[in-house]
Order: sequence, then C-alpha cells, then structure tokens
Amino acid sequence: MEMAEITNNSIDAIYAGMLSPDVFEHQMHAAPGIPDYLGMKNTPSTRLEAACASGGLAIMHGIIGIASGLYDTVLSVGAEKMTNLPTAHVTEALAMCADDIYEVSSGITFPGAFAMMARAHEREFGTNAEMRASVAVKNHKHAVDNELAQFRKEITIDKAINSLMIADPLRLYDCSPITDGAAAVILVPWDKAKNYSGPKVKIRAFAQASDTMSLHDRPELTGFMTTKVAARKTFEMAKLTPKDIDFAEVHDCFTIAEIMAIEDMGFFEKGKGGSVTLDGETARDGHFPVNNSGGLKAKGHPIGATGVSQVVETFKQLSGIAGKRQLDDVSLGMTQNLGGSGSTIVCHILERGD
Amino acid sequence: MEMAEITNNSIDAIYAGMLSPDVFEHQMHAAPGIPDYLGMKNTPSTRLEAACASGGLAIMHGIIGIASGLYDTVLSVGAEKMTNLPTAHVTEALAMCADDIYEVSSGITFPGAFAMMARAHEREFGTNAEMRASVAVKNHKHAVDNELAQFRKEITIDKAINSLMIADPLRLYDCSPITDGAAAVILVPWDKAKNYSGPKVKIRAFAQASDTMSLHDRPELTGFMTTKVAARKTFEMAKLTPKDIDFAEVHDCFTIAEIMAIEDMGFFEKGKGGSVTLDGETARDGHFPVNNSGGLKAKGHPIGATGVSQVVETFKQLSGIAGKRQLDDVSLGMTQNLGGSGSTIVCHILERGD
Repeated sequence: MEMAEITNNSIDAIYAGMLSPDVFEHQMHAAPGIPDYLGMKNTPSTRLEAACASGGLAIMHGIIGIASGLYDTVLSVGAEKMTNLPTAHVTEALAMCADDIYEVSSGITFPGAFAMMARAHEREFGTNAEMRASVAVKNHKHAVDNELAQFRKEITIDKAINSLMIADPLRLYDCSPITDGAAAVILVPWDKAKNYSGPKVKIRAFAQASDTMSLHDRPELTGFMTTKVAARKTFEMAKLTPKDIDFAEVHDCFTIAEIMAIEDMGFFEKGKGGSVTLDGETARDGHFPVNNSGGLKAKGHPIGATGVSQVVETFKQLSGIAGKRQLDDVSLGMTQNLGGSGSTIVCHILERGD
Repeated sequence: MEMAEITNNSIDAIYAGMLSPDVFEHQMHAAPGIPDYLGMKNTPSTRLEAACASGGLAIMHGIIGIASGLYDTVLSVGAEKMTNLPTAHVTEALAMCADDIYEVSSGITFPGAFAMMARAHEREFGTNAEMRASVAVKNHKHAVDNELAQFRKEITIDKAINSLMIADPLRLYDCSPITDGAAAVILVPWDKAKNYSGPKVKIRAFAQASDTMSLHDRPELTGFMTTKVAARKTFEMAKLTPKDIDFAEVHDCFTIAEIMAIEDMGFFEKGKGGSVTLDGETARDGHFPVNNSGGLKAKGHPIGATGVSQVVETFKQLSGIAGKRQLDDVSLGMTQNLGGSGSTIVCHILERGD
C-alpha cells in the first residue's frame, strides 16, 4: 500500500489466502482481522483455502472480483505463521491436506507422497538424486540475493545428496522448510492503475484446476494433470505458448515438484526436467530461469503466502526492481502454485506494464 | 443437479463454504474432494471460510465468478460434519472464530459472547427472557413442517425459559444445535437459466461486510454494524427498501441474534425485535415471516451449510415448492448470514423468477 500510495479508503475488498489459522494460531475466521488491524471499517475480507495454493487463489479471486465489476481496488494477501508448532505437528497438520481416508490413515505425510513421485520419475525417466539435488543447489544460490529469503546460503550437490534421509529417496535438502511469512499485492483495473504510484504490471491470464484427493485415483505419478490443465488454460487465455515466457516461479515444495512443474507446464520435454536443471538451463544465467527468488526451498514456504509471493517476485522482475537478482530483458513471467498432492493448481501469466 | 437436470460437464466451477474440515474431519483442502467424489474432471473447486458465514460467501463468490464472465455455471455448496467431535470440543472449536487474543484467552465462547449482547439488549430495550424464548418457540413451530429440519417438535415459552442455563441469561433453547448437513444451489446467468429444468429465481442483490474481531473494539453490543452495512448495501444494489421484502431467513445462532438481525436489517424499529416476535409478527402467519424454515435454532446449524441453506429456503418459497410451509404471494425474500461475533455478514435478496 505504501508503494502504491494507496489509502485504506480506496480498498474495496480483501482476499486472503491462509491454509489454517485454526491449526497454526488457534484463530479461525482470521480474514476480518486484516481490515481490523489495518484500521479499515467494514471492508469485506474473504479467506480462501486450497492447501499450499491458497495464496494463488487469493490473487485469482481478487482478479475475478474486479472483472465482475463489483470492486475497483482489491488487496490480495497471503499469510501463514507456522513456527508456533513443533516441526512434527506441522508435518502432521500439513498431511491433513492429503486424502485423509486412504492416505493419511496409512501414515503417509507429504514427504512420503512426493517420495513416491520421485521414485516413479526416476524409474520412468532416470531422474536421479543428483538431478533432484541440483534444484535445491540452484534455488539456494538464487536466494543469496533475495533479502527476504529464509536461507541465504549456498549448498553443494554433495552436501544435498548426503543430507538426512527424510522419506526415501527424498533427503533434507529436497524439502522446503517451515516458514512464517506474508505477501500482498494491490489489484486494480488496468485503466485505473495510473492513479496510483509505483511500478505496475499486467496480469495477462490465470487458471485453476482440481484433481482427485488421492494419488491412487490418478493415471500417473510422474506429473500433475492439474498443472497440465491449469497451464494449458492459462496459455489459452493469454494467447501465448510456453516459448513466449521468459521465466517462471513454480511450486518447489520438494525438488521433484519443480522438475515435474517445468515439464508439465510445457517449458521442457517430459522427463527432461532433472537433466536440464543439472545442466544449468533454469539457473539465473540459464536460458529459462526458474525460481530466481530462491523458490519455496530457500526463500521459504509460509503456506498461504507462497502463491502471492510468486506473483510479487514476478511483479518485481517485470518492473525491474528485483535488485541483485534482476533478470535482463524480461517481459513475460509465469507462476504455478500447487495445493495438497496437486489436487489444486493455480497458474498466472504476468506481463511487463510499459 | 437433478432438479436442474444438469450434468457434470456443464459445471464450470465449484465454490464451497466450510468452516473447518480440518478440525471437524481431519481433512484440510476438502474442496477438491467435491468434484472428485462427483466424478468431475479438473473442475476448479474453491473453499471459502468466514466462520458461520462461509455458506453465504460460497453463494456470493459464485455470483461474482459468473458476473466476471469467467464462468457460466457454478455449483455453490456449503457443508459441515460436526458430530464427529464431543459437544465441548465443538464449542471450543467454534470459539476459535472469536478473537483469540482478547476473548478466547479469557475463556469466552460464543454462548458467553451472545449472552453479553442479550444482557445489553435487555438493559437498553427491555428485551426479556420471554421475548427471547418466543424466537425459539416460533422457529421450532416452523420446523415441524420442514422435512429436512433437525428438530420437528414444538416447544413452549415455559419450557424454554426454564431450560438449562448455558451462559446467563441464555438458556438451552436460546442456542442453536450442533448439526451435520449440506446445501447446494446451481447459479447461472439469467438468460441461460431457461436451458435448465426446474424452478428458477433471480438473485437480485448481495453484499458482504467485515467488523473488528473483538467486541470491545465496537461502539455497541446491541446490534451488528456489519448487518447494518451489508443490508444497506444489498438494498442499494437491489434498489429496494426493507418495506419491499416479504420474508427473511436470518442467522438465529442464538435467539438474541434473530432479534438484533430483524432490527439491524431495518424490518423493525431498533429495540422492538423482541416484542414483535412475542406478538407473532414474524411467525408464518404474521405480516413478516422470519425463519419460516425453522432457522438455525430448529432446522439446525451445520456451519458451512447454513448460508447456502438460507438461500435454498428462499428459493423454495419464491418458487412455490415449500410444501406445508409455503408462504402466500411472496415475491422478494432476504437472507442474512453471520460469521463469528458478527465479524462477517453476508446478505442476499432473491426475487421470484416469473
């Protein structure tokens, strides 16, 4: 709001992505707390939950609110405060986002679910530990230049592939951390953006897709149908193809998730996500930078905030205000935000505003 | 979907109001479960949470989705399964919807919060136990003719004012029950409604408002600013006044809440809500029927379902399919759905479709 020089009175509605203020903070119905603590009077504030894709929905439904004509100015925010709970409790809480009846009851948590995907991807495409580790090494390196990142230290392939085993074959450095954080954007119709200060970018397209709760109901474990569907719909709305996009922020909750995302979105051939990462193609100086922010792995993964944060990073890159991690000559960026075991995916394409 | 003779393929999106599938069912990220269990492929499904107003938001944001042009056909659903937990756990879970820092930490739960409002209303306007009980007596009587109601038995004023004290001055029959339930509607643009079977009504207007989390930050305890603001905005959008409305379904989580609602919405003078109820003005045969369905008190209050259920009841009345509880000659009905201690209010006005 300070960047846009926008005041409380100009905000028509708030959309808030939060996974579970119930479980993490003992504060259900947290959305009205936002206008309350900002000193706004009676501004409608709506909480959206789609597991780790809650933030993506806060952006998308803010756009829909404006497109409907009901609102001119929306504050879309994502937030999560996770460190109140011990780590094991957080893992158990997050597991509730998987299928409770068939999966959680068998003792599986998300590291286990994504470990099965990593195994399937390795068996089918040869995506090995070193390739997975290369995602973490790249994202840690990227985060060194992100002053808001949780971990600003480089790691090596050797360190990653010898770190603590979490859920075979995923090790500590294959997993994103537990994080407190928040992110926010102001959304307005493009023709009214000139009324506000600061840089502006266009949201060119977006889409949301759902899939089955349980993994056993899906035809494959090596990718997400939801990513494919949401990405295809987003490209259709934007009238663009993967080749048009300059960079992406994708949901690397586990290293294998980034590998599957860049394949399923169409940026790389299916099965090649691991090897292209190892080859440096998705590094900041590669031909298609992915998670230049540090991603969930190193920037951190405060659940509800993540989808909003991806859009904030894309906004900064397209506005040329990304500081030391600024990419040269970028005009189109894409985000992919994943909820649960990929049961929800939300994608956005943003375009440089000038 | 059977009533409208609509198939899975025609549903563009699902909006689901659920308070906390996390706490009640150990299943966070429950929204994708709806298209999954309905056998729909990849249909976006979004959960909205606004405490007991979650269902109202599922309707309202479904409308916004259609108004945006993104969707033609929306399934708005509300659901809650509350009886998995012991009663005391439910009360504690619901209390998380009040202000956790200042209120819940002091030991207050919702019966206590609404008891303070009942005390304030009694002190200022003389709204006594008999008047409060008359809300429950009326709503129990109404529910006898609702085949989907939780309690289909009449009670007396005498029984109500001598029932178990819950939070002084509120007694057992001043409180709505713990309920399992669900409700759903199909939303389409009016010009496409003719493509589907069954009766249709128009949603003429809607609004949402927020207020402070804690009661101590508000200027008064005898009504909700949010109800006043949301009702005023709804009337403005509809270009109608309270005099134009024929009946209402309002949020009687406690008897005092119905009394305050019919005042704050403008149907009765402030302070008269109790006496007009005792006088029978809001009974089925009164001049302005309120909670002809039985209300939360007797129809039941499955949290996320309630706001959708209010719209379903209004739809049935305006379509002439309400059976034994059908009101004569009604063309405009209004709903008021309350979340938390009134920190969220959602109102809708529906109009007969012919």
